[in-house]
Amino acid sequence: MISWPTIYHVLEETVPLYVAMIVAYLSIQWWKLFTPEQCSGINKFVAKFSIPLLSFQILSTNNPYDMNIKLIFSDILQKSISLLGFAVISKACCVEKFDWLITGFSLSTLPNTLIVGIPLLKGMYGDEAVKLLSQIVALQSLIWYTLLLFLFEFRAARGIDTTSSSETANEEESGTPAPMRERHEEGQAKGVSARCYSAFRFLLVVGRKLVMNPNMYASLIGLIWALISFRWRIQLPLIVSNSIRILSDGGLGMAMFSLGLFTALQTKIIACGTKKMLVSLGIRFFLGPALMVISSYAIGMRGTLLKVAIIQFCTGSSTSRNSAICVCEGV
Amino acid sequence: MISWPTIYHVLEETVPLYVAMIVAYLSIQWWKLFTPEQCSGINKFVAKFSIPLLSFQILSTNNPYDMNIKLIFSDILQKSISLLGFAVISKACCVEKFDWLITGFSLSTLPNTLIVGIPLLKGMYGDEAVKLLSQIVALQSLIWYTLLLFLFEFRAARGIDTTSSSETANEEESGTPAPMRERHEEGQAKGVSARCYSAFRFLLVVGRKLVMNPNMYASLIGLIWALISFRWRIQLPLIVSNSIRILSDGGLGMAMFSLGLFTALQTKIIACGTKKMLVSLGIRFFLGPALMVISSYAIGMRGTLLKVAIIQFCTGSSTSRNSAICVCEGV
Repeated sequence: MISWPTIYHVLEETVPLYVAMIVAYLSIQWWKLFTPEQCSGINKFVAKFSIPLLSFQILSTNNPYDMNIKLIFSDILQKSISLLGFAVISKACCVEKFDWLITGFSLSTLPNTLIVGIPLLKGMYGDEAVKLLSQIVALQSLIWYTLLLFLFEFRAARGIDTTSSSETANEEESGTPAPMRERHEEGQAKGVSARCYSAFRFLLVVGRKLVMNPNMYASLIGLIWALISFRWRIQLPLIVSNSIRILSDGGLGMAMFSLGLFTALQTKIIACGTKKMLVSLGIRFFLGPALMVISSYAIGMRGTLLKVAIIQFCTGSSTSRNSAICVCEGV
Repeated sequence: MISWPTIYHVLEETVPLYVAMIVAYLSIQWWKLFTPEQCSGINKFVAKFSIPLLSFQILSTNNPYDMNIKLIFSDILQKSISLLGFAVISKACCVEKFDWLITGFSLSTLPNTLIVGIPLLKGMYGDEAVKLLSQIVALQSLIWYTLLLFLFEFRAARGIDTTSSSETANEEESGTPAPMRERHEEGQAKGVSARCYSAFRFLLVVGRKLVMNPNMYASLIGLIWALISFRWRIQLPLIVSNSIRILSDGGLGMAMFSLGLFTALQTKIIACGTKKMLVSLGIRFFLGPALMVISSYAIGMRGTLLKVAIIQFCTGSSTSRNSAICVCEGV
């Protein structure tokens, strides 16, 4: 069992995060300190500087040669199961297919590891947990957020596609019946080339967003630097690492502050209605950990490692917001 | 003489500050990342949260019973000489009297101790210097910025006063010459009561600004807590100090970042023309330190203490901006 001193120690690490968030919330709701435009300035700072620098710092200071293969495979397995499961479910029964796939996948597999998970598990298991979580953060930033970005863009592209194809249909219906066959063939050819074009445009948009995503860069450079640094035992000169630290130091606090601003600017705290919220909570706090337990047992991961992997799923419901910052606003 | 390793060590502490500033500058000038309104959001965050929490942290963690009386008296003497000197000069020769008094006083006596001075002197003399500078920061926040606020408001009030008295004069000139004496006496009585009223309003404005200045509160509470904490050897619970640290941690970086944003938003970097800039630089880097040398010798302060007191004057020309953040925008 977890002892009381451990619980207090965990609170010492995590309560400050929520204090920063509450201060931000009050600064909007009570003191009317920031206009929405000013908030977006702070959010942009967080997305473009705080979070990328924090990612870099975490990834570059943890040894990538000391990876825990079991943890990584469990993580990949859990996310694959979730992706597959939600793809099947949303294909089978829902109208807004991609909405559920994206929401379900991100809720069940992408907790707030970087911002809340690391301080929480540091409080519980010490620096060893940070080392483990940094591997999960690396995968999140480099693989899973990229996948999420693909899904987001794919949904957006499908939306456009549906509109334009129904427009084409309308055009055809209103056309004069005279040279029907030619028109039809022409329309088909048009459709194929349009599909080619839209696929190309889709890849272009995704590529552009990836190229412009500072968190992606920061994670990649952080990982590469860690590979160099731990291989040849060289460290960044203090002048460089201090320069990074001066802006990343406030990263945690600023990220939570920005989360508080975001919450305060919503007209309702529960934006989606009570039923959807309960489903979301169920996915986040039961389905996500349950999938992790299944994956971990399948891979053969037990003990502290399993606990670390599961507890990170209790790190707040701010994932979609967090991934939104990193993936979408970060672009 | 200062050795090369010492110089490098100082650079390790100070260059990061300017990196944060340059990144902010580039984010406006090259990447067009923030709109002016978004910048003002970030600046407001710095003025309302980062700088006050940083002041609190510095003041509350340094022993106020271990004060260096010589340093404090030298500091007070230097500032008094400057205040008197600039008052005499501006009375004697200038048209815009208060402008020169305020600019001269703040340039020659209020360097950027909190933001740049502490990292710089920490690099040179270690934690002992931080202890000394925290005393100067306390005096700056509690006494000298308050005085500066008075001067600012007094100038603003005089401006209004001049306008309204010239309006009265105009009114009198355009009046019919018939009941001349009554009008004159009435005007005088009106003038006295108006002066009383405007003095009252002036105090009200100053009081209101002081009451609403978070940096003032933070410094005062920090000092009071330090007095309690070092007297009875009690410390803040880690959960509280962590909550403060999570937002103040980024304080230094954010303050420099906000300075960079401010610089980038100016249409010209040298806003006042070359001549005035040279005079300002002379006041900051020669007159200020010279006054400190005179005061220190008068008080009998020598050695490292003298060096610390003088070197803090080399901490950038951002004082007026810094004090503007703390005194004016902080309101």
